[in-house]
Amino acid sequence: MRNLTLLTDLYEITMGQGYFNEGRHEKLAAFDVFFRPNKLITYSVAAGMEQVAEYLENLHFTEDDIAYLRSLGIFSEDYLAYLSKLRFHGDVLSVEEGEIVFPYEPILTVKAPMIEAQLVETAILTFVNHQTLIATKAAKIVDAAGGGVMEFGLRRAQGADAGIYGARAAMIGGCVGTSNVYAGKLFNVPVSGTMAHSWVMDFGSEIEAFRAYARSFPDNCLLLVDTYDTLKSGVPNAIEVFKELRAAGHEGKGIRLDSGDLAYLSKQARKMLDDAGFPNAIICASGDLDEYSIASLKTQGAKIDSWGVGTKLITSADLPALGGVYKLAAVFEDGAEIPKIKLSDTTEKITNPGMKELYRIYDRGTGKAIADYIVRENERIDEEKPLELFHPVETWKRMTVKNFTARNLRTPLVLGGKCVRKALPLAAYSERFKAEKARFWEEYTRRDVPHIYKVDLSPALCKLKADMVCREKGK
Amino acid sequence: MRNLTLLTDLYEITMGQGYFNEGRHEKLAAFDVFFRPNKLITYSVAAGMEQVAEYLENLHFTEDDIAYLRSLGIFSEDYLAYLSKLRFHGDVLSVEEGEIVFPYEPILTVKAPMIEAQLVETAILTFVNHQTLIATKAAKIVDAAGGGVMEFGLRRAQGADAGIYGARAAMIGGCVGTSNVYAGKLFNVPVSGTMAHSWVMDFGSEIEAFRAYARSFPDNCLLLVDTYDTLKSGVPNAIEVFKELRAAGHEGKGIRLDSGDLAYLSKQARKMLDDAGFPNAIICASGDLDEYSIASLKTQGAKIDSWGVGTKLITSADLPALGGVYKLAAVFEDGAEIPKIKLSDTTEKITNPGMKELYRIYDRGTGKAIADYIVRENERIDEEKPLELFHPVETWKRMTVKNFTARNLRTPLVLGGKCVRKALPLAAYSERFKAEKARFWEEYTRRDVPHIYKVDLSPALCKLKADMVCREKGK
Repeated sequence: MRNLTLLTDLYEITMGQGYFNEGRHEKLAAFDVFFRPNKLITYSVAAGMEQVAEYLENLHFTEDDIAYLRSLGIFSEDYLAYLSKLRFHGDVLSVEEGEIVFPYEPILTVKAPMIEAQLVETAILTFVNHQTLIATKAAKIVDAAGGGVMEFGLRRAQGADAGIYGARAAMIGGCVGTSNVYAGKLFNVPVSGTMAHSWVMDFGSEIEAFRAYARSFPDNCLLLVDTYDTLKSGVPNAIEVFKELRAAGHEGKGIRLDSGDLAYLSKQARKMLDDAGFPNAIICASGDLDEYSIASLKTQGAKIDSWGVGTKLITSADLPALGGVYKLAAVFEDGAEIPKIKLSDTTEKITNPGMKELYRIYDRGTGKAIADYIVRENERIDEEKPLELFHPVETWKRMTVKNFTARNLRTPLVLGGKCVRKALPLAAYSERFKAEKARFWEEYTRRDVPHIYKVDLSPALCKLKADMVCREKGK
Repeated sequence: MRNLTLLTDLYEITMGQGYFNEGRHEKLAAFDVFFRPNKLITYSVAAGMEQVAEYLENLHFTEDDIAYLRSLGIFSEDYLAYLSKLRFHGDVLSVEEGEIVFPYEPILTVKAPMIEAQLVETAILTFVNHQTLIATKAAKIVDAAGGGVMEFGLRRAQGADAGIYGARAAMIGGCVGTSNVYAGKLFNVPVSGTMAHSWVMDFGSEIEAFRAYARSFPDNCLLLVDTYDTLKSGVPNAIEVFKELRAAGHEGKGIRLDSGDLAYLSKQARKMLDDAGFPNAIICASGDLDEYSIASLKTQGAKIDSWGVGTKLITSADLPALGGVYKLAAVFEDGAEIPKIKLSDTTEKITNPGMKELYRIYDRGTGKAIADYIVRENERIDEEKPLELFHPVETWKRMTVKNFTARNLRTPLVLGGKCVRKALPLAAYSERFKAEKARFWEEYTRRDVPHIYKVDLSPALCKLKADMVCREKGK
C-alpha cells in the first residue's frame, strides 16, 4: 500500500506545529465534510469512504518523510519527534458508499485530536470529492441511457488513480463494467473490450481482420465497424463473418460504432443485422458520449444496446470538481462541546455549527423521501409526533409531516483509528444507490430543472446557528 | 514502485491474444501519440515523459496479474505464459518535457513488437494526456499572472495521482511552488502554506490566533485575514501583530485574501499595510482563480503579489481532457516499413502515415520560430537551401523560407526497453519551456484569438498521405 501520509497541504503541517507549540494539538476537534450547491448536480452519490478509512488506518510518517520535513527548515525537533509517532486515533462518522446526498449535508465528520483532524483534511477531501463526483456523473449518464453503460475513460483520466478510482466510482453510480483491467482486478468488477482501429488497420483488409478476430474469439466476437466505411464496408463484413461463425456453430456478439452519426448509423446497422438474420447481435456505441448526447440519441430512436462512455465520464467534463469542503464544527474542552461557526457575507456560506446528525424523513404511506433533516447530536426525532420542517433561511416555507419514518444516514466508519465498517462488493453499493433512488420522486432526481429537495435544520440547530451568528457579528 | 502493468484497457490484451494466435505479435509496429486542435489551447507544454519511461521499464505481469487474467476465461494458457514473460523491448522517441507542441504533431512514437506497442497504449496516453494538459493550463495561468503562481489544488484533484503529477506538471508549466507536500518531496520542489480558517476559528479571537501563529513562525508569518471581516478586522489585526513582531526584531511576511472582491480588498489592504509601515508585506490571493479571473484582477489594478490557484488549475476546469490519441503509423515486414493510415470523412482526422520526424524551423535573423515541419523518417532538411512550406490541406497557402535553422524536436526516450534520457530537475523543464516560449512571437501564444502556428508536412509526406488516401478509398 502506498503511504500517502504526505498527501496533504503544507498548511496542515504548519498549523500542526502551531497547535503543538500552543499545547492545543491534542484537544479534540470535529470537522464536517460537505459541499455547496451547483447548477449541474441535483443529487450526489457518495463514494470514496473505503479509501478514507484505508488511508486513516495507514497514516504514519516514515523516517524519510520526517527527514524531508526537517529539510524544510521550519519545524522544531520536538514537533518532528511527535509527528514521527503520530497515528490517527479519531472517530469518523459518514454516509455509506452509494448513499444519495445533498448540499450542506455533513456527509462525513472527523472527530479527533486537533493535530490529527487537521492533518487528514486534504486527503479526505481528495478521495471523497473525486469519487463522489464521478459516481454522480456516472449516475446521470446511466439515467440517460437506462442502463448498459461501460466506463471506457482510462486514457483520458487525470492520472492513474483518476482512472482506477474513477472506474470504482462509476460502478457505484451504476455502470455495468469498465475497460480498465487494473480496476477490474482491484475491485472485482466486469471488464470489457475487444478491438481498436489498429487491429483492423494491421490486416490487409477489414474482412481479414474480422475473420482473424473471430478465430480467436468465436464466442465473444464484437467487431469495430467504422475503420473504413461503416455501412458500405464495416457492417456487411461483420455480417459476412457472423454467417461464417454461425456455420461453425458460433454466434457473433455484435458490432461497435465509434464515429459518425450514431443515430443514423445504428438504425441502418440494426436493420442490416436484422435482415441478415442477426437480431440478437448487439450494437455498442462509443465516441465522446455523455448524458446529453445519449439522451438525444434515445430521443432519435437510435438502436444502441450498450454505451461505452469515456472522457466525459472519467473527468466529469462539465463539472470537473465537486468542491467539497472540510470545516471546523466544534472543539471540546474538558469533554464539553464548544460549537464553532464560519461566517460569511453570503448567508448560504455560513456553516452549520456544532455536532450534528443527518436524517432522511420518508413518508410511511408512499415510502418516498420527503426531506433531509439535520439535527444537533443526540436530538431525538419522535416518529409518533408531527414534525415541522422549515426552510433554514426562508423560514416561512414550512410543512408539517405525520406518519413518517426517519433514517439516520450516517454510521461509524472509523472508531479510535480503526475501520469498523465492513467493505462490500461494489455491486452492493450500486444496489444501495439504485434502491434509494427509487425512494425519491423523479421530480427531485431529473437532470433538468429538478425540484429542489429540502435539507432542513431542526429548531435547536437553527437557534444555535442564529445565536452564534449574532454573537460573532457583535464582536 | 506500483506495478501499473494492468493499467490498460482490456482490448489491448484481447487484441494481444488475437495477434498471438495469428503469429503477428512480434512483428514490429509504430504508433504515434498526437492530439487534435481544440478551441481553448493555442499551444501545449509537453509533460509526463519520465513517467512513461518509468512505466515501460517496469512493465511486467505478476503471477497475481496472470491469475486474474486467467480468471476472465477468455485467454489461452500459451498466451498467458507468453504474457508472464513479457517485457517492453521497444524504442520510444519523444519531445522533451517542457517542449512546446502543437496539434497533429507526433509528440511521442513507440516502435516495438505489436503486442507490446499495443499493450502500452492506454497508460502512455493517460500519463501524457494528463500532465501535458495540466502543464498547459498552468502555463496559461502563469502567463496571465506574470509569475508568482502557487499550485494549491490537491483537495480538488481527481484522486491522489492527479494531485501529485498535476503538481509536477504545474511546475513544468511555470508555477513556483505547490501546497502538496507529497509532490514537494517526490519532485524536490518548493512547498508553501501557512494557515486555514480553522486555525483562526479555534482561538478565542482573530488577534489571539494571529499572535499564536507569529509565536511559532516569527519569520514566516503570513496571515489569513478573511475569517471574520477582511478590512475591519483581519488586516488591522495583522498590522497589529506585524508591529509586535517588528518590535521583537522580526518582519511579518504578509497576508492572504481568500474570499470577497479581491480587486477592492487587495487595493485597500495594500494601502493599509503601506500606511502602517509595511510596504514589503506581500498580499497573496486565493479562491477559485484561473487565467481569466487573474487577467481581470490585473486589469483592475489589484495589488496581489502571489496567487494560490487550486481547483481550476489542477483539473484544467474548462478543458479537463486533452484528448490525445495513439494511432498506428507503420508496421514492418522483413525490416521494411509499411506505412499505415486511418481514414475519416473529416479531412483533419486522417492520420499522417509512416515513420516521421518533427522539426521546428527558426528564422536565423530574429531567432523566432516560423513553423513546425513534419517529414518522413530520414528526410534531410538542407539549411543552405530555401525551404518551401505549405498548408497540408489548403495547399495554396505557401511560403518560402531562407536563412533558417531546423531543430529536431524529438530525442530517444527509451531504446530497447531501457530509458536513455536522464531525468532533470523540474526547474530545468520549466526553464526549457520558458526559453522556448521566448522564441515564439506573442501573436502565436496569446490566450485569445491567437494566430495559428503552422504545422506543415514535407512534400514527400504529403505525397505518401495523398497516395494512401486514394488507394484506401479505391478499395
